[in-house]
This record gives sequence, structure tokens and C-alpha cells, in this order.
Amino acid sequence: MREITPLDLPDMARGAAVLGTGGGGDPYVGRLLAQQALLRHGPVQLVDPMEIDDDAVVIPTAFMGAPTVMLEKLPSGAELTAALQALEQLIGKKAAYTVSIEAGGLNSLIPFVAAAELGLPLIDADGMGRAFPELQMLLPTLGGVSATPMAIADERGNAVSLETVSNGWAERFARGVTIEMGCSAAVSLYVLTGRQVKDMMVHGTMTLCQRLGAAIREAGEAHRDPVAAATEVMGGRVVFRGKIVDVQRGTQGGFARGEAVLDGLADDLGSRMEVAFQNENLVASRDGEVVVSVPDLICLLDTDTGEPVTTETLRYGLRVSVVAAPCDPRWRSTEGLALAGPAYFGYDHEYVPV
Amino acid sequence: MREITPLDLPDMARGAAVLGTGGGGDPYVGRLLAQQALLRHGPVQLVDPMEIDDDAVVIPTAFMGAPTVMLEKLPSGAELTAALQALEQLIGKKAAYTVSIEAGGLNSLIPFVAAAELGLPLIDADGMGRAFPELQMLLPTLGGVSATPMAIADERGNAVSLETVSNGWAERFARGVTIEMGCSAAVSLYVLTGRQVKDMMVHGTMTLCQRLGAAIREAGEAHRDPVAAATEVMGGRVVFRGKIVDVQRGTQGGFARGEAVLDGLADDLGSRMEVAFQNENLVASRDGEVVVSVPDLICLLDTDTGEPVTTETLRYGLRVSVVAAPCDPRWRSTEGLALAGPAYFGYDHEYVPV
Repeated sequence: MREITPLDLPDMARGAAVLGTGGGGDPYVGRLLAQQALLRHGPVQLVDPMEIDDDAVVIPTAFMGAPTVMLEKLPSGAELTAALQALEQLIGKKAAYTVSIEAGGLNSLIPFVAAAELGLPLIDADGMGRAFPELQMLLPTLGGVSATPMAIADERGNAVSLETVSNGWAERFARGVTIEMGCSAAVSLYVLTGRQVKDMMVHGTMTLCQRLGAAIREAGEAHRDPVAAATEVMGGRVVFRGKIVDVQRGTQGGFARGEAVLDGLADDLGSRMEVAFQNENLVASRDGEVVVSVPDLICLLDTDTGEPVTTETLRYGLRVSVVAAPCDPRWRSTEGLALAGPAYFGYDHEYVPV
Repeated sequence: MREITPLDLPDMARGAAVLGTGGGGDPYVGRLLAQQALLRHGPVQLVDPMEIDDDAVVIPTAFMGAPTVMLEKLPSGAELTAALQALEQLIGKKAAYTVSIEAGGLNSLIPFVAAAELGLPLIDADGMGRAFPELQMLLPTLGGVSATPMAIADERGNAVSLETVSNGWAERFARGVTIEMGCSAAVSLYVLTGRQVKDMMVHGTMTLCQRLGAAIREAGEAHRDPVAAATEVMGGRVVFRGKIVDVQRGTQGGFARGEAVLDGLADDLGSRMEVAFQNENLVASRDGEVVVSVPDLICLLDTDTGEPVTTETLRYGLRVSVVAAPCDPRWRSTEGLALAGPAYFGYDHEYVPV
């Protein structure tokens, strides 16, 4: 167990943005909210998953919606605690811990807000090891854990709860409700036991975010290559270096969808790359050939500073390096690929692991 | 108190279709479901609202969605009882009675299904005295009763519950969820006390439906004018007689919207009428001038048989009489008109009572 103070958050947010693979919401928003909550309520205890009781009640918290909207409609901690408490009431039990369902982007820092507001310790783990656009794309889904009962709350005081026959239906209803709530809402779902956290979540990802963010910052301070530093922490490799020459983007069905086109600046890494995204980067093709795809991580980093580039901040002329990193091995199982592999997103190429 | 058997249902369904003012869903579907439930479980007790205890727990049941879809995707009693029981669980109380929120169309007969399945008596009353397209358009809304907690259930076993800050928000979320459920869902909402039923509901409307349906049938059997018979029971008047020459129709945002154009066949009643609808008939204009509008009732009856014509069964060549009938007087208050008057539906004319 260790204490997380507001000083830990900037590195953690930077690392979370890298694992967000372009999406997962702007971690700057998450950082601001977490910072405010930690300043008001004091530090949050970050707990190793192996330290918790097998029968502990663990209730995750998150924001759901279109990241582009969250930049304009800043969420508050009130709806987060409302969602968590509504779920406590539904199950008739109190949470002993909260945890992140998604280590990438906004949702890696959001549970710190709930933890600080409610005085709960936070578990150093998450349910994806990255960010994914849909709520059923969680390793516990593979383990048979139900996303429901699930609670959804907005900033007006509205609350919706779901009890569905599958996690896919939970995604469908929750997406519809989130859209009615103005494309962003606080959610609490996937009630887990301590044992399930140990068996099904990705361990240590909050600490990984912090290490990754620190590596980029320290490389910059020491005038070393920050992209190389990040790549090393993630165990990945640089698959392209180039300049953004085109971005197409739209909000569709509550998602930010689009594509970025890059012109090559490193002769040995090809001349053109296309990166398709749905909130997160999904597929990177180099000179017409797929080189990385979901569930592996496709991270765009500013070539000079190593700062992660989200799909909202893609813009013409930006020089970026594209880093491919391996996903949690459980995503590479047949069931994992069915849930979050290229075919699910409508691509017909085979998945080739990084 | 009296017993309702399957033999009472055909007249009741016919009358309900008249009060449905073109919408409210096909009462034939409601009649089939109610008939089946009464044959299986025996008669249902119909109770006068003045007979019930002031503190009795009353839980209404209904179907929500696009009537055009319900014709193709026949709802079952299972999701109705699921919705009512989900709401019982939310409030931690058992229903002593169920009641209709809407006397017009499908939803006048639907509560008989829940009553028969669960062995509950049904109150002879409803919340509108007619049919309206949106769930906040209920007299209890005017009395400050919350539509939530509300439960929504589908035929797959999914359940959604709502707790909203206003009945307008309940409509918005419930509509979105209903659309995701395939444009039709069972709902249970507006938990009422016996006192609230007495004070805020329209009394005797189940019996009115039956009387109205019987009057049309008996007039036909006796070779009297069935339209005149219906008009008399409703205390209304015939405002047009003509032939349908055009129908425009579409499904939009979960509603059936459109307009019918009629050519006159009775010289003293004008030469042309336009009837605009959103599930229900909203505004009837005669030779360019509004003659009836919501919240008053606009009922299209087959001129020969007196059978009610719903917006789904409007077709070229049909000879219809347009009957205008007064709404419950509480709809004519400033608050009532704000909730369900012409301005709410986007019309800029003043409301002129029938």
C-alpha cells in the first residue's frame, strides 16, 4: 500500500494518456478532477490487489460518453459518488474498495475522485490494461462477471439502473442513456469480489501509468529520447515516424470516429500510415498493410516531447511516432479476440500479435 | 366492485380505441393479451376508486413504444409482470391494486393482463381520460406525483429502472431505452396512494370504454347511427364527415407522426379537413381553420360502422366522421395546457375548448 498525493498525478495522467491509445477521454480532465478531490480530502491509499480479502466488495467507477464532449461539459465528482452509492443500494452492500475498469485515459484517474470523496482505498489494477470504447470489453466479461447491476448518474440528479441479460445489452442501454444525458455520465458497474480482482484484472496498471509518465518526463529533462523511454517501459516498438497530413473525425452513436493519415519521416519505417479510431486507435496500416491492430496498443506520441496525442488533439503538421505495444495476453485468446479483436470492429484482417 | 370476464373485453376494446383518438396502440392487441390472461387466470375485479383505502399502494402498468411496431412484435404478459415486480422491489412495497395510466388504446386493457397474472384488483380509472403520446402527460404530474421510480422490462429479460428529477426526464430516458429494446417495452411507473388515485385520476373510464363500445355495437345491431350513439356517450359533436384522400406517415424518434387529409361529404360541415397526429390525433383544421385540438379528443370513426379508425389503419377512400369531445376539465388549466396543449406540440394557435 502507498499514498497517492496530488504530486503523483501529473506523471500518472501522462502515462494514462499513452495507455489510452488515443482515446479514453482527456486525462487532463481526470487529473484536474482527481487533483481537486485529493486537495480537498487528502491522499488516497493505493493497494496492491494481492493484499485484499478474497470476499471484499469492490465497486468500480468510471465516466462513459464521447471524450470530445467531456472537454466541454466538465464532469463533477458528485455524479460519480451518486453512481457508486446507487449501486451500493442496489446490491445492499457497501464498497470496501473502488478500482478503475480502464487504465487508459480519463478513467484511470476518475476512480481517485470517488476514492477521495468516499474515503475508499483504490486497487492498483484495471479491467483492460488499456482503454477500449465499449463497456463489455473488460477482462472480467471473459471470466463471466456481469456488468450489471449497473448505475448511471448525471449532473442533474437523474439516476438510471440496469439489470441486463448480457454485458452487450448493458453497453447498448447505457450508451443510449448516456446520449440522452448529454453524451457523458458517471457509471458504476461490474461489482467484483476481491478474488475476481486478483484473478481477472490487470495488476499494477496505476503504477505502470505513473512509471510511464515519469519516464517520458525524465527523458525530456535529461535531453534523452522520450519516445524511446516510453517504448521501453511498455515493452513495445516504434512502427512509424511521420507528420500528420490529414484527419477525418465525427461523432457517431456517442463515439468519436475517424482516421488520421501520416506521411513518413523515417526512411526505414515506410512512407505512409493510416490510423483508424473509434474513441481509441483501432488499426494502423503502413503502406497499405496492417501492422498493428486491437487488442494490441497503438500509441501516438509527439516525436519531440513524447507527450501522448489523443484523437481529439490530432492536427495537421504534428510530428508523431507510432508505438505498438502488446496487450494483456488474455486478450489474445479466442474469446478475448471475439470481444475486442479486429473482427468485432468490422475489419476482416487476421490479428497479428505485436 | 364488479367482475370483468373475457366477454366484457370486445366492447371495452372498441371504446378504448375511440378514446385512443387515433393512437394509444391497437386495442386489438391489448384485447388479445387480456383475453388470454383472463381465460387462464379467471375474471379480474374492477374496483371503484372511492372504495379503496387512502393509503393503498397502487402501481400502474402499461406498454410504451411505437404502436406500429407493437402490431408486429406482439408483447407478452411476462415483461409486464417483470416491470411491476421490479418496481415493487425498488419501493420495497407490494401493490394492492394496478390501474391504467391511459384510458385510450392498448393501455386501457394492458393492466387487465397484469391484474390477472398477479391476482390484483384493477381500479376503474386512468390518468388521462384519453391517450397521450408522452409519459409525463398524466394528471398526477399536475398534482406533483413523480413518474419515478420507474421500471422498464423487455421480452429478453432485461430490466432498466429510472429515478429522475422530473417526469419530462423520465420520458426522455424511457423513450431512449424503449427504442433500444426494439420500440416496445413494458413499463411500471407513477406509484400512487389510494388518496392520489381518488384526487388526481379520471374516475370510471374503464366502464366508460365499455359503455362507449357497447353503444356503437348496439346501434349497429339496431340499424341506428353508430357515430351518433358514440358521440352522445362522449358528450361530443360531429365536426366533419368525409373521405380520406391522403395520408402521410413516418416513424420518428419512436413516434408515429403524420397527417391525414379528408374531402367533405356533408355540405354543412365544410369541404376539407386536415388531421395531424403524433401517435394520437393532435389538431383538426377545417377549411384552413383549427376546430379541435389537444387536449380535447379528436376521434375518427368509420361513418358506416362507427368503428374507431387508428392512425395505423387510415387509408385512402375510407369514409369517416370526425368527432370532437371535451377532455377532463383539469387539462384545461394553465398547467394542463402547458403539459399537453397545442403549444407543447409546436402549434401556435390558441386552444379553443370543444
